[in-house]
Amino acid sequence: MKAVVLLSGGIDSSTTLALARSEGYELYALSFDYSQRHKIELEAAKRVSRSLGVKKHLIIKFDLREIGGSALTSDMEVPKNISGGPEGPQELPSIPVTYVPARNTIFLSFGLAWAEVLEAPEIFIGANTVDYSGYPDCRPEYLRAFEDMANLATKASTVGKIHFNIRAPLLYMSKAEIIRLGTTLGLDYSLTWSCYDPQKREGHFYPCMTCDSCLFRQKGFKEAGIEDPLKGFPKNLTIFGDDSYAR
Amino acid sequence: MKAVVLLSGGIDSSTTLALARSEGYELYALSFDYSQRHKIELEAAKRVSRSLGVKKHLIIKFDLREIGGSALTSDMEVPKNISGGPEGPQELPSIPVTYVPARNTIFLSFGLAWAEVLEAPEIFIGANTVDYSGYPDCRPEYLRAFEDMANLATKASTVGKIHFNIRAPLLYMSKAEIIRLGTTLGLDYSLTWSCYDPQKREGHFYPCMTCDSCLFRQKGFKEAGIEDPLKGFPKNLTIFGDDSYAR
Repeated sequence: MKAVVLLSGGIDSSTTLALARSEGYELYALSFDYSQRHKIELEAAKRVSRSLGVKKHLIIKFDLREIGGSALTSDMEVPKNISGGPEGPQELPSIPVTYVPARNTIFLSFGLAWAEVLEAPEIFIGANTVDYSGYPDCRPEYLRAFEDMANLATKASTVGKIHFNIRAPLLYMSKAEIIRLGTTLGLDYSLTWSCYDPQKREGHFYPCMTCDSCLFRQKGFKEAGIEDPLKGFPKNLTIFGDDSYAR
Repeated sequence: MKAVVLLSGGIDSSTTLALARSEGYELYALSFDYSQRHKIELEAAKRVSRSLGVKKHLIIKFDLREIGGSALTSDMEVPKNISGGPEGPQELPSIPVTYVPARNTIFLSFGLAWAEVLEAPEIFIGANTVDYSGYPDCRPEYLRAFEDMANLATKASTVGKIHFNIRAPLLYMSKAEIIRLGTTLGLDYSLTWSCYDPQKREGHFYPCMTCDSCLFRQKGFKEAGIEDPLKGFPKNLTIFGDDSYAR
């Protein structure tokens, strides 16, 4: 059985891919080059795809900077230390400016298109509602509504050939639980990338360690009692000298 | 009040744009260069946008040929004369191969993203269920499901700032009624393009006159008792010598 898995190259989507693999699916990983500030995550997505033996990894390219509205797709600053750091409580006052308008809807729509062509009933997404930034398009009610819409949208579902399932197996897990799960499944987290605001030093990129995504990562590893293989200086990420990832 | 209008450059979306204009909306037209066989429709979209005074016309580019699954995004042949021609009954045995997997879902998702950034509550689409090819993502139940999903997907709708409306004002109109409406609104149909399979002759492109889309167009004008300004030889379409539109 085939599955399309949305893959950013971060912890959640990479763990989701490892989980789908453990369930025996033939894997079709789908990533997006949307002119995101942290486009370097795509290199992580490629590494994770290779390490987990996906059948095909497709990267769809479009420019969300033309639409804007987010710190990840404009020159707006990425907020730092707003989640209180790895020690602090995860309490966000509101949906942060790193929210990208309709991003998961766009991603899942392409996932649906590919799933229909592949005849893959399962579309996996690493959405999570515990250690997350409060993005509306990570919530269960949103994902259910997308699934309902998806089954009215396509030829394959309309003629009764396929019922599409939007699978978000990490939805109610903490970041620490996700990391423990991925570790059990043999996922190498040194291959992943989380930072929204990559810092360039001496021709290489390093995580900023203070954006929301870095903070959730640190908190997760800390709570899981596992050392982050990426922490501070990612020694094995040789592609990080590529200037095309600097913005 | 702002409105995002999906605009392919065909009769339905152009009429929808003219209708939104007549309702007094500030117009934001959204088109897609998805490597469609009939990419030339984008020139029509530009002309129609200019003629109706849109505030901004955005063309988002991505390559649906990487996903495929349609005669419009692969080397599959476009079927000819299957709707019975302008004289025949409109009875399609099944959803034709010109169906593009999840196309309207992808288009509406980008429309939703732009609408959120613009703070535009209305998203217009020229979907129609009368003289159409049976595409599932043109049906009212699909559009309602997309609207429900959309209002769970975004920051603006979640915080109660905007309720998004998916507006499909042509949904229950025949092609003839649509053409009469557009004519009343002053829309110049010589600016539009319908053909799925543009034919190149002497450096210019002409409609094939036999694909579904051409047949519905001919049937519509005939029933409306109006002459199609594009019929046969579009004299005023000077851009048609551009080789980048040949596939």
